Amino acid sequence: MKKLVFTIILAAIISFPSVSQPSPEQVVKSIFDEALTSNEAYENLRFLCKNTAGRIAGTSEAAAAVEFTRQVMEEMDLSHVFLQKVTVPHWERGTVEFGMIVSSRFGSLEVPVSALGASPGTGKDGVISQVVEVKSIGELETLGIESIKGKIVFFNRPMDPTVGNTFSAYGGAAAQRTAGPAAAAKFGAKGVVIRSLTLAHDDVPHTGVTRYSENGPYIPAVSISTNGADTLSRWLETDTELKFHFITNCKNYPETESANVVGEIKGTVFPDEIITIGGHLDAWGPGEGAHDDGGGCIQSIEVLRLFKVLGIKPKRTIRAVMFMDEEMAQSGAIEYARWAEEHNEKHYAALESDRGVLSPVGFGFSAEGERLENLYELKKHFEPYGIYWFKQGGGGADIGQLRRFGTLLISYIPDTQRYFNYHHSANDSFETVNHRELQLGSAAIASLIYLIDLYDL
Amino acid sequence: MKKLVFTIILAAIISFPSVSQPSPEQVVKSIFDEALTSNEAYENLRFLCKNTAGRIAGTSEAAAAVEFTRQVMEEMDLSHVFLQKVTVPHWERGTVEFGMIVSSRFGSLEVPVSALGASPGTGKDGVISQVVEVKSIGELETLGIESIKGKIVFFNRPMDPTVGNTFSAYGGAAAQRTAGPAAAAKFGAKGVVIRSLTLAHDDVPHTGVTRYSENGPYIPAVSISTNGADTLSRWLETDTELKFHFITNCKNYPETESANVVGEIKGTVFPDEIITIGGHLDAWGPGEGAHDDGGGCIQSIEVLRLFKVLGIKPKRTIRAVMFMDEEMAQSGAIEYARWAEEHNEKHYAALESDRGVLSPVGFGFSAEGERLENLYELKKHFEPYGIYWFKQGGGGADIGQLRRFGTLLISYIPDTQRYFNYHHSANDSFETVNHRELQLGSAAIASLIYLIDLYDL
Repeated sequence: MKKLVFTIILAAIISFPSVSQPSPEQVVKSIFDEALTSNEAYENLRFLCKNTAGRIAGTSEAAAAVEFTRQVMEEMDLSHVFLQKVTVPHWERGTVEFGMIVSSRFGSLEVPVSALGASPGTGKDGVISQVVEVKSIGELETLGIESIKGKIVFFNRPMDPTVGNTFSAYGGAAAQRTAGPAAAAKFGAKGVVIRSLTLAHDDVPHTGVTRYSENGPYIPAVSISTNGADTLSRWLETDTELKFHFITNCKNYPETESANVVGEIKGTVFPDEIITIGGHLDAWGPGEGAHDDGGGCIQSIEVLRLFKVLGIKPKRTIRAVMFMDEEMAQSGAIEYARWAEEHNEKHYAALESDRGVLSPVGFGFSAEGERLENLYELKKHFEPYGIYWFKQGGGGADIGQLRRFGTLLISYIPDTQRYFNYHHSANDSFETVNHRELQLGSAAIASLIYLIDLYDL
Repeated sequence: MKKLVFTIILAAIISFPSVSQPSPEQVVKSIFDEALTSNEAYENLRFLCKNTAGRIAGTSEAAAAVEFTRQVMEEMDLSHVFLQKVTVPHWERGTVEFGMIVSSRFGSLEVPVSALGASPGTGKDGVISQVVEVKSIGELETLGIESIKGKIVFFNRPMDPTVGNTFSAYGGAAAQRTAGPAAAAKFGAKGVVIRSLTLAHDDVPHTGVTRYSENGPYIPAVSISTNGADTLSRWLETDTELKFHFITNCKNYPETESANVVGEIKGTVFPDEIITIGGHLDAWGPGEGAHDDGGGCIQSIEVLRLFKVLGIKPKRTIRAVMFMDEEMAQSGAIEYARWAEEHNEKHYAALESDRGVLSPVGFGFSAEGERLENLYELKKHFEPYGIYWFKQGGGGADIGQLRRFGTLLISYIPDTQRYFNYHHSANDSFETVNHRELQLGSAAIASLIYLIDLYDL
């Protein structure tokens, strides 16, 4: 009750500028107070995770996620809620994912596998063949077509655990997944097995998109758990003749229609200037896409809710955008920027939350010189919440499309040390999200946007 | 294999100063590389958690923890491993913990409870009585003896979720547990129920020590889960006559002997100057004491292992100390400082890891002026690992006893946003510890100590 009264009073104060206004410090505190004591975002994330798991672009789960987030925002009394139609690729994981090492020496061992996004299914009998293990695409050239033709290529490059930044470690190993199958296909491989991109040692395969050459060949490709990869590699040391057998029934369908979901609060002074806050709505099954990136979407919606419930009236138009199809082809991001161009929109700033929703540590900004210094000045508002890493460099797969407009791009930076344990796998479940960590992020993003808009930074 | 060769070469280089020495940057990198690729600390923590759970001072589990950590250090070829005898209180949780709300209006509801450390058992039939709910000890004075006598006092002050620093939020509510039962006893209460000190909303009670007046009265006291506390409070609003019934068979025994466990690497230049790295070995059942504070103990041992395996020869003597009995009476910390005084030891610096082992974010130092500035200069070595919060203020329940010697006190600071979800409860299990987060902490501590010793900071 006390909280409700406080909120109403604050809303009244902010709405009528003639009354003495709360200081920016008071507004930031009210944002954190509301976020940390509200369950709305957390329950929205629970719903999204539990009811639209496997919502990769083009699926019925993705359509359900579009409809759910649209409804949530429709009920928030925003200035405008709308869908931006997007043509997306449509790939379905299917129902069969089977992997087995077959060794005359060690016996047969079933290992968990997960089809890579965009890969074709194997057919009913699957692919079975001898295995060529490599650590990089470059090694294929050295081996040559005679060693690879008709075989399964096993890319076994681990993420480097000694790299401090886990996203850099991911970047150092991701090419084997995105480009490995296409490269192996050129050398006549029948199929590809990729070591999962994770720092965990466990039995959970981590999927993700792969990209083929325009005219193929399109060969089946799966990821294998890190434990599975270690076993396969060890067995291969003494049994070079062993075979790998895998079956998938994933499938590519014709392109289809989907949408970005957009909700906005109209600006009171510069309504034509837009500040975008976004995450991506699509997510890989078999996980629930809690950290990647349901959390980022729900935080974006929560920023609008915090502004509304606290009566904060931004000078510029604030948009929450659920980008569709970040994982497969970034078609939602491309369409968002194209549409902005067509409508002569002025994009003042854009923030992306797509690094999971563990404890927030800071922000990165695509700014320099005096503007960057002014943004660094805001740090004092965040330090009481343990958020103190403001650095140069901002962007993201979705908002990055706005870079050509000169838009200030901002990366939301949470702690990511355990993020890749969840990323693109069944481990990415609602249960791994902590209410407080999620909401410290929502409040930090809302506060940053409020301050940037207030001070015209 | 490659790693082993690298380690041997590095050890050789560091051991023979005539050969060109690796730079401090190279040594720090070698520390992080070794920590992030080794499983030893993680497996030591698993053993401690799984085999000595409930190791509060004086118990056989605590004795097992002393023996295990002593053996681990004995096998490490250190300069010296020894036990420091400590006289400790001896309280046992017992086997019965039962709580029930009994309402003629709403019926009976069993709720999870946990006996507070040092509290006496209830006897076989338990304590059953009407309930007086308060939010603070001060309210007892207002209510007076006539409202409290013969009743159960229910302290229901939540940790404030809007406080940025979770330890401050804990501090704001902890008095009800440490001093509430003694205060309520003075007003004639028969028993005390405390709302669990956690930011989680769940069914898990969080325990901790309580302190009685020297001559009592000693009344039984339990914590209740936050969900249980909310229900009890809500039912009390309409049924002020309801009763609470709880049974415990915890028991205080005569003081007994235990020990601090100490392992050290002798300094090569200033062997009489000691740098202590410590955590506390005792922990509350029914949890495993993974974050509080098995992790801190294992990190302390791991620092010595990192020095040994990398051949780092410190100028000063480096000690890993497993303090006994932080939770009940800090008798291990008091004895460590008394012993130091008796032996005229010079304590150059001391670091405590007792805030859980989630992702490291920085360090706090009990220094000022130029010394503090020089310590801040070290930050550049840690930023690649996302560790960038160096601040004034260092100490801890165990190393705090050394403050009177003018020792530089250092607090290891990990992220603590979800720490109190685990703290003093069954939630504090090995499974909640992430290998990478634990080891980033071990490496950060080892690197800091190496640099402070190297540069005589």
